[in-house]
Amino acid sequence: MNTRENPTNDPSLESWVESARGHGDFPIQNLPFGVFTRRTDGELACVGVAIGDSALDLSACWEAGLFAGTPVEHVNVFARDSLNDFVEAGPEAWSAVRGRVSELLRTDTSTLRDDAAVRDTALVEQGKIAMQLPMRIGDYTDFYASAYHATNVGKMFRPDGEPLLPNYKHLPVGYHGRASSIVVSGEEVRRPMGQTKADDAAPTFGPCRLLDYELEMGFFIGVENSLGARVSVEAAKKHIFGMVIVNDWSARDIQKWEYVPLGPFNAKNFATSVSPWVVTLEALAPFQVKHTTRGADDPPLLEYLKGADEDAYDIQLEVGIASAQMRTVGTAPHIVSRGSFRDMFWTITQMAAHHTSTGCNLRVGDLLASGTVSGPEESARGCLLELTWRGTNPITLPTREERKFLADGDELVMRGWCERAGATRIGFGECRGIVTPAE
Amino acid sequence: MNTRENPTNDPSLESWVESARGHGDFPIQNLPFGVFTRRTDGELACVGVAIGDSALDLSACWEAGLFAGTPVEHVNVFARDSLNDFVEAGPEAWSAVRGRVSELLRTDTSTLRDDAAVRDTALVEQGKIAMQLPMRIGDYTDFYASAYHATNVGKMFRPDGEPLLPNYKHLPVGYHGRASSIVVSGEEVRRPMGQTKADDAAPTFGPCRLLDYELEMGFFIGVENSLGARVSVEAAKKHIFGMVIVNDWSARDIQKWEYVPLGPFNAKNFATSVSPWVVTLEALAPFQVKHTTRGADDPPLLEYLKGADEDAYDIQLEVGIASAQMRTVGTAPHIVSRGSFRDMFWTITQMAAHHTSTGCNLRVGDLLASGTVSGPEESARGCLLELTWRGTNPITLPTREERKFLADGDELVMRGWCERAGATRIGFGECRGIVTPAE
Repeated sequence: MNTRENPTNDPSLESWVESARGHGDFPIQNLPFGVFTRRTDGELACVGVAIGDSALDLSACWEAGLFAGTPVEHVNVFARDSLNDFVEAGPEAWSAVRGRVSELLRTDTSTLRDDAAVRDTALVEQGKIAMQLPMRIGDYTDFYASAYHATNVGKMFRPDGEPLLPNYKHLPVGYHGRASSIVVSGEEVRRPMGQTKADDAAPTFGPCRLLDYELEMGFFIGVENSLGARVSVEAAKKHIFGMVIVNDWSARDIQKWEYVPLGPFNAKNFATSVSPWVVTLEALAPFQVKHTTRGADDPPLLEYLKGADEDAYDIQLEVGIASAQMRTVGTAPHIVSRGSFRDMFWTITQMAAHHTSTGCNLRVGDLLASGTVSGPEESARGCLLELTWRGTNPITLPTREERKFLADGDELVMRGWCERAGATRIGFGECRGIVTPAE
Repeated sequence: MNTRENPTNDPSLESWVESARGHGDFPIQNLPFGVFTRRTDGELACVGVAIGDSALDLSACWEAGLFAGTPVEHVNVFARDSLNDFVEAGPEAWSAVRGRVSELLRTDTSTLRDDAAVRDTALVEQGKIAMQLPMRIGDYTDFYASAYHATNVGKMFRPDGEPLLPNYKHLPVGYHGRASSIVVSGEEVRRPMGQTKADDAAPTFGPCRLLDYELEMGFFIGVENSLGARVSVEAAKKHIFGMVIVNDWSARDIQKWEYVPLGPFNAKNFATSVSPWVVTLEALAPFQVKHTTRGADDPPLLEYLKGADEDAYDIQLEVGIASAQMRTVGTAPHIVSRGSFRDMFWTITQMAAHHTSTGCNLRVGDLLASGTVSGPEESARGCLLELTWRGTNPITLPTREERKFLADGDELVMRGWCERAGATRIGFGECRGIVTPAE
């Protein structure tokens, strides 16, 4: 079966959960997975699915016997503080569980709809839960897959040379990131201290002065490859569980001084935020589109990177900033950029294939991120470095505050969603984070 | 109490385990921790301590009540497949357990010596066990802390510029490495495939042709710092559990093409080997020496990197290579370099302090490695890149085979030990790995 035509994605489906029937992020065609705790008491975390303005506690559903007949019927893999055990159960289990949840939430299925006791336990308003990091992440890798972003950075930092380095169009450049400091949307991000150096001065240690965000998409590995085994572009999708929005917070002044010759280190290791709901590739299938960013003049692909012609995803992305002052007066986040993930030069399948081309093992829960998502338009630049062109062209907020880089108290709000004619709009929710002062 | 004078390090101590009384790596003054399984059946892994040619199964000792009165008396943290739970118990537990093991193994303690039943279960010849990766590693960080190594690399790759980049003496340069592919000594290492590019040709994909090793020392984090909390140089030692030898296998041809601008990625992610026995900082304390590599002409240290004047460790290191042909005829590994960890420009406490200076959290089990350990002498160069000066000066093995870089079938054998007058010699054992052909 073509996953694009998966019955769980059928636009004619409707849920008896009323809030899922509008144009929000979480209709019955989405059903992303996350981990939450109820805010009330010291309750344990559980795995859930977002539906409209609510979340469905899959552990409670399991206890009620609603997953009988699925691959997870024998162990409650939802009574966990991460998705890992569920994801370890494999692609058939993901699909079967999502199918069962779709069935349970459909207008015409009474099982859960009419069982007040189970329903009132399992269905909880999102406003009453606290989302957790969805996966226990072993390794985190960050790519640099937008040629628009890489070109802009190249123009700024190497004005006299070719903006793209010679390797850029031959392989998806990436580097190992820091897994320990990945936090879920909503957690505050402290401005880091660090060593920086002004051009004609000695290095100093102090609060980062050029704090930036980077809008990225991330994908979680769902099926591991053993050490020494390569994953082809064609097979890669079967290894990917789903996607989230990623904010790769970046200290530009720390990065500038430290990054030669081994790449970014302290400039990126203080925090990375991810959105809490993992949207499965199954739900995203209707939004897969032709991968069109590689042009006729670009160098030919080596064989191991071919086969991704249909592997782009049209995910609309936007970034908003709300300063402390804006939040005080109740002004909505000011949208500073809008773009699409389809504009990336490299696909997620090429990233996974390249990463494993040496035999490197990707494990369940590993996070791979795309690098800054920037598009061809100036309005589609995914970080302040590009948007303000290193601070030379500041942004003005509705409060008339100017921003070259982030100020303490600024809240970043990233949103992502997919829509097209003939399919139901689905979304990722938000990836938020407020910058708190250095300490 | 000064840890240098810890009673467990007293040179007058002797063990009733006869093989621990020679000049080997594992006298009673060492007592490094590791994880092993017996080779016989499907037995579960356990935590053990090396003593002479044997290993002491701490789980069996715990079951026999031998850890009563220590901080771990209530939970058998040794019935595990990693050291993590034991290490999580904290520095007092590490010290108390090592103290109890020292007591149990002393000539004059009869408890274990004369209890044949427990002793025969718990004490097992190292030849009859299979060592496992000692820790469950969350994040792996690799530094570049030898100025001799960095200078040599700079001379080779930037012959017209200053060999050391401007930041080198101001901060310990490092990068995030790949945790998933860290393997224990003895595991085979497959030559990676990868994308490389000769100077005047298009890129190609195929087996790495310039495979190298890097001799490094690694240290495991034993006490975490929470996200946002910095660890000072002075406090850093309290966060470190112990050290191992690390072989940072490197594909030089992959690295050369991929590494700009984000650093090494696929060139290093296919394997990293570590020695199996973690030598505690407590055991290493007698070999702490003055940190003398920073000269009067070097730039002043920023405050957050000061305080490491006594934090060097005089660990003797040597690297041997045994080709397949040498092993066939029974020739011992050919020693290609000898050096000391005391020659590093940055100390392990400076590395930890710099790493956390942004508030980055280090978790229990995280591995930080030093980067290639090279010394001032040509004979103390810690990788083939330097030893053969990019292949221009090949090494000749006793079999008259030449090596510019590693050949399939080559076995790398790294050894490390400490000795000085007035202290008992202790060692790390070996970090071994055989290169198998690309597939």
